[in-house]
This record gives sequence, C-alpha cells and structure tokens, in this order.
Amino acid sequence: MLQAFKSHINTTFPKLNSNKLLLAVSGGLDSMVLLHLCKASGLNIAIAHCNFNLRGKESDADTLLVKEEADRLQITCHVEHFNTESYAADIKVSIQIAARELRYQWFDEVIKEFDYNYVLTAHHLNDDVETFIINLTRGTGLDGLSGIPKVNNTIIRPLLPFSREEIHTYALAEKIIWREDASNASDKYLRNSIRHHIIPKLEDLNPVFLDNFKRTQHHLQQSSKLIEDYTNVLFKTLVTHTDKGFSISLTKLNDFENHDAILYQLLKAFKFKDWSSVYALKDAQSGKQIFSETHRLIKHQNALLLSVNEALHSETVTVEAEAKMVSFPLGTLEFNKVEALAKLKKHIAYVDADALQYPLTIRRWQAGDNFQPFGMKGKKKLSDFFKDEKLSLPQKENSYVLTSNNRIVWVIGHRIDHRFRITKLTKQITQIVWHF
Amino acid sequence: MLQAFKSHINTTFPKLNSNKLLLAVSGGLDSMVLLHLCKASGLNIAIAHCNFNLRGKESDADTLLVKEEADRLQITCHVEHFNTESYAADIKVSIQIAARELRYQWFDEVIKEFDYNYVLTAHHLNDDVETFIINLTRGTGLDGLSGIPKVNNTIIRPLLPFSREEIHTYALAEKIIWREDASNASDKYLRNSIRHHIIPKLEDLNPVFLDNFKRTQHHLQQSSKLIEDYTNVLFKTLVTHTDKGFSISLTKLNDFENHDAILYQLLKAFKFKDWSSVYALKDAQSGKQIFSETHRLIKHQNALLLSVNEALHSETVTVEAEAKMVSFPLGTLEFNKVEALAKLKKHIAYVDADALQYPLTIRRWQAGDNFQPFGMKGKKKLSDFFKDEKLSLPQKENSYVLTSNNRIVWVIGHRIDHRFRITKLTKQITQIVWHF
Repeated sequence: MLQAFKSHINTTFPKLNSNKLLLAVSGGLDSMVLLHLCKASGLNIAIAHCNFNLRGKESDADTLLVKEEADRLQITCHVEHFNTESYAADIKVSIQIAARELRYQWFDEVIKEFDYNYVLTAHHLNDDVETFIINLTRGTGLDGLSGIPKVNNTIIRPLLPFSREEIHTYALAEKIIWREDASNASDKYLRNSIRHHIIPKLEDLNPVFLDNFKRTQHHLQQSSKLIEDYTNVLFKTLVTHTDKGFSISLTKLNDFENHDAILYQLLKAFKFKDWSSVYALKDAQSGKQIFSETHRLIKHQNALLLSVNEALHSETVTVEAEAKMVSFPLGTLEFNKVEALAKLKKHIAYVDADALQYPLTIRRWQAGDNFQPFGMKGKKKLSDFFKDEKLSLPQKENSYVLTSNNRIVWVIGHRIDHRFRITKLTKQITQIVWHF
Repeated sequence: MLQAFKSHINTTFPKLNSNKLLLAVSGGLDSMVLLHLCKASGLNIAIAHCNFNLRGKESDADTLLVKEEADRLQITCHVEHFNTESYAADIKVSIQIAARELRYQWFDEVIKEFDYNYVLTAHHLNDDVETFIINLTRGTGLDGLSGIPKVNNTIIRPLLPFSREEIHTYALAEKIIWREDASNASDKYLRNSIRHHIIPKLEDLNPVFLDNFKRTQHHLQQSSKLIEDYTNVLFKTLVTHTDKGFSISLTKLNDFENHDAILYQLLKAFKFKDWSSVYALKDAQSGKQIFSETHRLIKHQNALLLSVNEALHSETVTVEAEAKMVSFPLGTLEFNKVEALAKLKKHIAYVDADALQYPLTIRRWQAGDNFQPFGMKGKKKLSDFFKDEKLSLPQKENSYVLTSNNRIVWVIGHRIDHRFRITKLTKQITQIVWHF
C-alpha cells in the first residue's frame, strides 16, 4: 500500500512533496495509517489533534496515543481541547456539526499561525461508498452521489482511492496502533449498518465492486463539473442583473431545451422547495409569484425576476450591549472583549469598542447601502464593493451587515468599516466572531 | 392504485387517452396488472404476446393465459411464436438479447401493420432500482444511474412510478391472475438477489427509500439532459468537420475548464477504452495517435483529429451467392429470396435479385462514395446524402454499404440504390434484413 500511496501522491498531488502539511489525526485506524504513510513517504508533516471532550477518559486516551506516537516519530503535534457540548448548545446545532465546525475553524487557525500549506484528512473509499448509500436512501441528485471531494481549498484527502480493508491490512502488517475513532459517533450506527449489511451484498454481486465504484465516482464528478460549467454559460446567456437580484429571460430560455432542468440550475442556491411551482411559473400569468425562505420569484412579462424576500429583508436583529451570542439567519455572532488582535480572518472582526453605539443591528444589506471599506479613504456603495470582490450572486444575495447608529460596522464575513477600525487611540477592542 | 395510474396518465401521457395502444403482455404479474389498469382506465388497447419457446409447456401456458384473458376482456390479442434459440445461435448473441431484439422488431411490425401509435411495457420502479444497483456494481456513469426512460420513441412505460409491492397488492385486491414471468430469465438470479437482500436493507435505513429513489432518478435524468445540451454547445464551439471525421481545437478548448470531461463527452461514441491515453493526447507531441476499435485520434498541431480507423476501413466482408447470414461489424445481414415486398422498414431492403453480381461486399463507406438514392434521378455523393439525412457524426462514421461490382446496392439501414430497386420487370426479389 505504501507504494500505491506514494504513486498516488506523485501523480495526483505532487505539490504535497514540497509543502508543509498538517495531518488531522484522531487516533483512529484511518488517520494513524495516514500518519505512517506520510512519514514513510518522507513528507513534511505535523499533526493536529482535536480533543472534543465528548467521551471523558476515552477522549483523553485518544489524545495520549496521538501525542506518544508523535513523540516517537518526532513530529510536531498540535492539540486543542474543545467544550463541544456547550458550543453546540450555544449555537444550537448538533454535536456532530459543532465538532466539525470547531475542527475546521481550528485547523484554519493552525495552518495560518504555523504556515502550513495543506490539511490532510484520512477519508477513504469506504467513507465515500457509505456517503453515497446514505444520500441514496435519503433521495439526492448528482452532487450527493459524486463523493467527497479529494481537494477542497486547503483540505486534501489522499486516502480516497484506498479501501478500509487495504488500510486495515496495512495497519496490521506495519503493527500500527490505533484506537476506535470517536468522531462521527452520531452516524456510526448508520455507517456500520451499511458496512456490515449492504457493502458485502454488493460485493457478492460483483467482487470488484469497490474498484468499479471508484470509476463510477470519477465519472459522476466529471458530469458534475460539466454541469457547473454549463450553468455558467447559461447564466451569461439567460440572466441579467437587476438592482434587487436578477432576471431570467424566458424568451431566451425558449432557445434551449429542458427548461426545468435549466431553471433548477440557475435557482438552486435560493432555497426554493416546491420546484414544480417554480417550473410552473414559466407559463403563469404576469404577476404570479412564489417565495422561498429567503427569496421571491415573480413572473413579469417574459421574464422571471428573482429578488430577496422583502419580508425577511426588512427584518433586523437587535444586539444589546451585554449580548454575547446573537443568532441571525446566517448563523451566530459572538461578541468578546479582547486585549489584542489575533491574526485577521474573514469570519472575525476586530473593532474599536468605544465606537459602537448600542443597540447594534444585524440585517441583510440593501440597495443604497454604503460604507468606508477598511483601508480605503472614501465611501463606497456596497453593491460596487461586492462587484469588486467578485461575489457570486447567491453570495451577494445572502450578505448581512452589522450596523451601529445606521452606519455599517462590518459587512459580515467580508470587510469592516474603516471608521470602526483599531487605532493607536483604541482603548478597548471588541472581537466579533461569525459562526456559520 | 387505479386512481394514481389514471392521474399519472393524464398528467404525464395525456396522449395515451386518444391513441391506439399496443400492450406488451407476457402473462407475468406486472404486465397483467398493466393490462387491467389500462382496461379499467378506458384506454384503447390491444395485446401483443411473444412466445419465445424457451420453457416448453410453461411458455405455452403463458400464451394460453394471455389469450383467455384477452377473450374475457374482449381485447384484440396478437401472438407470435419465435424460435429464439436458433435465432440467437444464428446471429451469435445471448438468448436474452435475441429475445429482446425479436420482441421489439415484432412490436415494430405489429404497430405499423395495425396502426397502433404506442407500445406500452410494464417496467416498474423496482426494475429501475435493480438496474441502478446492477450498473453500480459493474461501474457506471450518470447514464447508467438515470434509470429506464419513461418514453423512448414509440415505447412508453407508464408503470415506472409504481413499486412491485403496489402492483402486487393491486393484483391480489382485484383478483388478477398471472404466471411467473419467463422473460429476463438469465438475469433473474441477479435481480432476485437485489430484491431479497439489498432493497430491504436500504428500506431499513430509510422506510421511504423507494419514494426518495424516484426523486433521485428524476434529478439524475435532468442532469443527463443538461449534459447532452452542453455537449451540443461544445460541439458547435470546439469541433470542425473534416473530410474523414472531425477536428477538436485545443486552442479553443483552453477557453474552457475540465478538459478531460469535455473530451469524454465529445468522443464517447467512438469506443475508446483507455481514456487516460485520450486525455494525455492533449499534451502529446504532434503526430502521436491512439486507436479505438473503430477510430483513430491523432494530435496534429493544436488540434485532435478524429477519423475512421483506416485499417478497419479497408476491411471488406465478402457475400457469396449462397450465403444466408453474413456477419459484419454492425451486426448480421440475412439474405432471403421472397415473393413480395412487405411494408418498407429501414432495416430491411428489397432489391432485384438479378441485378446483383456475386460476390457482394460489405464495407464501411468511404469519402468519394456515391450512389443513386432510391426515388432520385441522379447520383449523389454519400457524404451529401448523410448531410441531408441529418445523420449525427457517430451515425455517419458507423455507416456501412453493401456493394455489387463496386456499385452501392444499399446504404445499410438508410436507402437502397435506385438501380437495384424492384420494378415491373423484376423476376425475383432478394430481401436483406439487417439484425443489429
């Protein structure tokens, strides 16, 4: 397996040979094998281990194992402890989602602080098959069947071509020690059931099922990419931007086939649920409209106009001075008083605490909004700012601002206003973290 | 179920209410239920029943059941007996493929002769799931997962939204009689295994799996259609036709992303097997080439040139005067002496026996070929003929001609030469049937 792993790295991710890599190691079979494979391949690696404090002594034993192995192999090991349960309660998500969010946020911090280039995770072929089956039973589309991406920004998953059996065999042969993986505990029952009852039956039907599955996934990924490309072409051809959103020309749509499939692609980011109503709108009377959680689609002459759902648009969330966690449609803002700035990140803002006039408000941006982007001298229309930042339409439509006395403090996730920045005169710093 | 069936017909196939329909009825559960549903919905139906003579008395008992039921319901019943085994041996295919070919050929004849508009078959949702799983275990792509088409030319499958269980429940409630279906016998083991061991497990994971699967199939079909549309766009942008095939501009390809996926779409009809070599050709030296069973792809400056594999191109199959069945790369030609012309069909040619000079030859068409298309006065270049007939490039590339003394007798599957036609002076007719 080591040979196959090396060759996979050299063919698919040659850049891993010359970069600093951070390995996500839980102490479970998969990540311990990944660690040994990377070490044996001479890659430049460090370890990141999360202790989510979800299983008491068991979690600590995981941490101990990873630390000891790191010592033995003389590899840097970053360890972080999380209070996952209270975090999940705070931002009202499942333990599993909270753990994932904490993990990836922390990885992000570590790679920036210590100048790693990529994070490597140990997802393998069986994870992929299981996800395929889970999504299939739930009802899905091409995206849900195309598998876990092997690269996603700075995250790389070099074990995807390898089966659990190969990994297990390698671990036994190389006498690698591991502990049962605590992550994904909440869907463990589901995955175990697929692993023990479904995959073996599929292998009965075809002994090389797993190899064939790899090929299938590759084909589906190629199909996904083509549809993405085509959607870009369709956007350019059929869509014109308007003040409040965009307009799809039904006249131009008539030059194409498969209108419903096209409308789905153009509109899938906007949370419509009843797609037959969306499709029916093509032939409806002018003025007929439907709403999603966030948007409105209205038939207007020979076009469908998409705009932000105005009812939501006018909704504002108030932030009192003593508030610590405030929920809004895109997640939660956490307000902290801090002593100093840490490294700058898009989802964290640092502003001069004394410049804020409470109550603050969080609201969706509006046409006409303007602010003074951090680092700039003059004011700028928010719509121009978004254009310069090359935001996609869905990103733009889903942008929120934090305001103080009707002035924008932070275009959340993008840029603070220059007037609220930290200066030499700042006495107190407010840190605002967006958990999404 | 009757109500759901009626509503499905009215929504999806309203044209079935006003047309003459031919029902493929084997005597098995699914087709007997389809028969009763159509009758109860007041559709204008007749029955077509094939006796493939594969199970002796059992086959005859099937036929008897269908005939009796047709009598009872006062519905016209067409029955045909086939010598499936000897046909399969003659054209060297499996029994299953032979049965399918015989069945659909015969349906085609019956609907033309008796002026039916559509053939209805009883494929249902579980057939779809089983096909999905079979293809998945074998390795597949989007097309292999998108399901049996609900409409395919004149064939319509109105039971696809219904599960085997619904059909079975309806049959019991309505006291419908059926016999175990003999068709698909050769993959019965496979399908039974999926039916008994895999589907129940998927339903354990999610009790509404079958409903969700319907949704999944719909989404995948939409994705398939979009890719088809995009491929047409790509063809127009990247491909120019040449004398021998076509040329893909690599310069223009560079304006796109996902080059491999695009090349796959443009070239998938040409039987290349080693796709990584196809993809590698983009960056190869000018002059490098690869071959498929039928085609050659060569890197030439900034283009990939596709042409018919010349080695194959020059290969001709000789047809002696006494030959009855002659194989060629696209199937088999069957030569018969007949008394009279039956209805004209694309895959059957009738020519004046005395005009033929043996040995005849079968070969792929060549640039420069010309003939006198039946019904026309002058000669025509074959390439122009194909253009007028709007053949797709793969169709054109895979066209064969039957020649006599260097003159084209039949552009196989398309048109005979006027000079070989049946006239008042014809003494003997040769019928040539293309089995593909």
